Amino acid sequence: MKCTILSIGDELVLGQTVDTNSAWMSEQLAAVGCAVRAHMTVPDDQAEIEAAIREAAAKSRFLIVSGGIGPTEDDLTRQALAAVMHAPLEENTVWMNQLESFFKARGREMPPINRIQAMIPRGARMIFNTAGTAAGIDVDIAVEGAVGARVFVVPGVPKEMKIMFARDVLPVVREIGGGAVILSRTLHTFGLGESSIAEMLGPLMKRDRNPSVGTTVANGIVSLRVNARHPSKDAAAAAMEQTVAECRTPLGDLIFGADDQSLPQIVGQLLEADPLARQHRPSLATAESCTGGLLGKMLTDIAGSSNYYREGFITYANESKTELLGVPSEMIAAHGAVSEPVALAMAAGAAKRANTPYALSITGIAGPGGGMPEKPVGTVWIGLAAGGKTSARMFHLAGDREMIRDRAAKMALTILRYHLLGKPMPF
Amino acid sequence: MKCTILSIGDELVLGQTVDTNSAWMSEQLAAVGCAVRAHMTVPDDQAEIEAAIREAAAKSRFLIVSGGIGPTEDDLTRQALAAVMHAPLEENTVWMNQLESFFKARGREMPPINRIQAMIPRGARMIFNTAGTAAGIDVDIAVEGAVGARVFVVPGVPKEMKIMFARDVLPVVREIGGGAVILSRTLHTFGLGESSIAEMLGPLMKRDRNPSVGTTVANGIVSLRVNARHPSKDAAAAAMEQTVAECRTPLGDLIFGADDQSLPQIVGQLLEADPLARQHRPSLATAESCTGGLLGKMLTDIAGSSNYYREGFITYANESKTELLGVPSEMIAAHGAVSEPVALAMAAGAAKRANTPYALSITGIAGPGGGMPEKPVGTVWIGLAAGGKTSARMFHLAGDREMIRDRAAKMALTILRYHLLGKPMPF
Repeated sequence: MKCTILSIGDELVLGQTVDTNSAWMSEQLAAVGCAVRAHMTVPDDQAEIEAAIREAAAKSRFLIVSGGIGPTEDDLTRQALAAVMHAPLEENTVWMNQLESFFKARGREMPPINRIQAMIPRGARMIFNTAGTAAGIDVDIAVEGAVGARVFVVPGVPKEMKIMFARDVLPVVREIGGGAVILSRTLHTFGLGESSIAEMLGPLMKRDRNPSVGTTVANGIVSLRVNARHPSKDAAAAAMEQTVAECRTPLGDLIFGADDQSLPQIVGQLLEADPLARQHRPSLATAESCTGGLLGKMLTDIAGSSNYYREGFITYANESKTELLGVPSEMIAAHGAVSEPVALAMAAGAAKRANTPYALSITGIAGPGGGMPEKPVGTVWIGLAAGGKTSARMFHLAGDREMIRDRAAKMALTILRYHLLGKPMPF
Repeated sequence: MKCTILSIGDELVLGQTVDTNSAWMSEQLAAVGCAVRAHMTVPDDQAEIEAAIREAAAKSRFLIVSGGIGPTEDDLTRQALAAVMHAPLEENTVWMNQLESFFKARGREMPPINRIQAMIPRGARMIFNTAGTAAGIDVDIAVEGAVGARVFVVPGVPKEMKIMFARDVLPVVREIGGGAVILSRTLHTFGLGESSIAEMLGPLMKRDRNPSVGTTVANGIVSLRVNARHPSKDAAAAAMEQTVAECRTPLGDLIFGADDQSLPQIVGQLLEADPLARQHRPSLATAESCTGGLLGKMLTDIAGSSNYYREGFITYANESKTELLGVPSEMIAAHGAVSEPVALAMAAGAAKRANTPYALSITGIAGPGGGMPEKPVGTVWIGLAAGGKTSARMFHLAGDREMIRDRAAKMALTILRYHLLGKPMPF
């Protein structure tokens, strides 16, 4: 059950964009037991796209093509596929209506060039796109001297591609593949590095183990991927649960969630269950300096966060810390804005102003400028007000401005998480 | 002078590693006028590597192969190349001596498996590796029915690859190519869709045009990529400027920046130059409901934003809008939190509380819940206070919660941008 992934785009072969789609799709396909035999990338050139489709289709049971289905003249994937199939492009009425209502809902006339996005080769099925105007294509094509391939065409925009791939491509590959069952679970941790986690897991990470345990890192979150491969689903599920339990033994509460659970979501769930928070809904306020709203943004990424998140103060200027949160200007002058007393006063001030039992504060030096010998870039103080008591801790965070801000917001969430769990932080 | 880049590795087709080498090499090659016709990636499988080398060599003047020349059993690139050439692998004495001294210098016996790293096909030249144990290979190979290709094999480790590519690959391609220089510029727009932008550009987007103009979309930003290909750098630069000017004619201020410039950065520059803002530094405050801090986060992504950004109010609860910004609770009860009067009152309240000449406000329904027939998910009101006057506009934004929040924050920045430019918004 081999698969080829074909990416289309001048920006890719010119090196202006790194292709992350192919790796993402490959990982998904591997998890359902489908071997990817090749990635190919060609420019927005119809002859090259045709040749690539022909060649890949002859060697693969599945061909996934991404990119080249936008509305502009350099988008030529649908034309190339139709040419390989010796089939005409035909208007798909369902998608044309969808496109027209899309533009109507925005009070705009549909530009004529968008009509091409409703054209698919005769005999092909249309794949719905809930996040953009490019419909996908799903078709079995015949290839001279070969079995023929099931071809899926999806947009190159990662967000659109991922939704369509998960919904309409992967289940088909899994079903037709019909081989061993591979179950996957991902466990997420934050706070320790990949090598520390690996050391704690020890022999669980042996390469030939089944279920296998691997680690990946994304934006400071170290995740464990457990893949269980067995002939039957029940055996795979049982082996999976066993290995997940073995991972939890050394890591304990370092694991904050699994699969698509996020840190702000877990903190939200803990707040919704917390007795003190339940008496004061919404129960949480934030006071941010160097993160400039990122902590509030993360909390409100979660639909329904209004149940527990009340308000935030982005006190970027020192005067704002004084005026909005009551941090004495003499305190800032004496200790600096990035200091324990200021972090404590920000958290206490936010809880008081918002009248919430919980408040988090962040004040730090995100860089690249502003570092000092005694307070280098990456120095961040995080404060917590909880039920009238305040505490604060300093961290030295590594990386550039974006990483320092991201890790600071996640560390603030982690501090609140351990407080709500009633446990000490293990790092 | 076409080139193919072939990457070898199980970790690539399994999606465990994102291939960044191909994009890096492509960019280098484009800069010396060498067009990359395709990227290919195959696993550590000798038959697949042989097939890929044969196919790519038949279609390209240059073939650059990275990966698969390590010392272990799954490293098969040199064997595959030798098989395609019908040539035996021979020990390269210079590199064998190099390897032996490498290990001797570290006080270790050379493991026998490393001997393979000194083997190259008969007739090939060895490429020195100053950063690792894998020597590279440089050879002209004949292909039945084709011109033949110059093949370079380099390690997959980016650090080693980059040194060897820059020193021993790129100069050869440049010299043999003797061809054109390619210059690139990217222009960014926000507010209109890709198809509208393409329509405004019209014939500038013709496929055979040089310089070429193509569009790409990322997170709502529609970008124009201009590629100018000419024999001399001066001619390329002149043609580039001419085409950029031709793009600016229909698009005008829709283009907010070029290359690595971002929307918040440009807004920051406009604020730093604005006479009213210069009298009140910092000059900007924000009041956010549905975006929950994202607008503040975007503004403070920019180092130095404290020059113009003072503070933000994340008024997620309705009570916060009243208590922190002075939005009358009766107004919220009468019109709803997502309404023109509330957006206006939030902006005015933020400017007043922060004592800044400018303030932006955002209140909307990010979903997935909370939509109503008259105010569906995606309804967002954005308010602007500027020099004592307030205005507000409603938008219907498409997509999921994340997209709606992202676009709302970018639209707020765009509203302020046009105000600071002293121009009406063209959409």
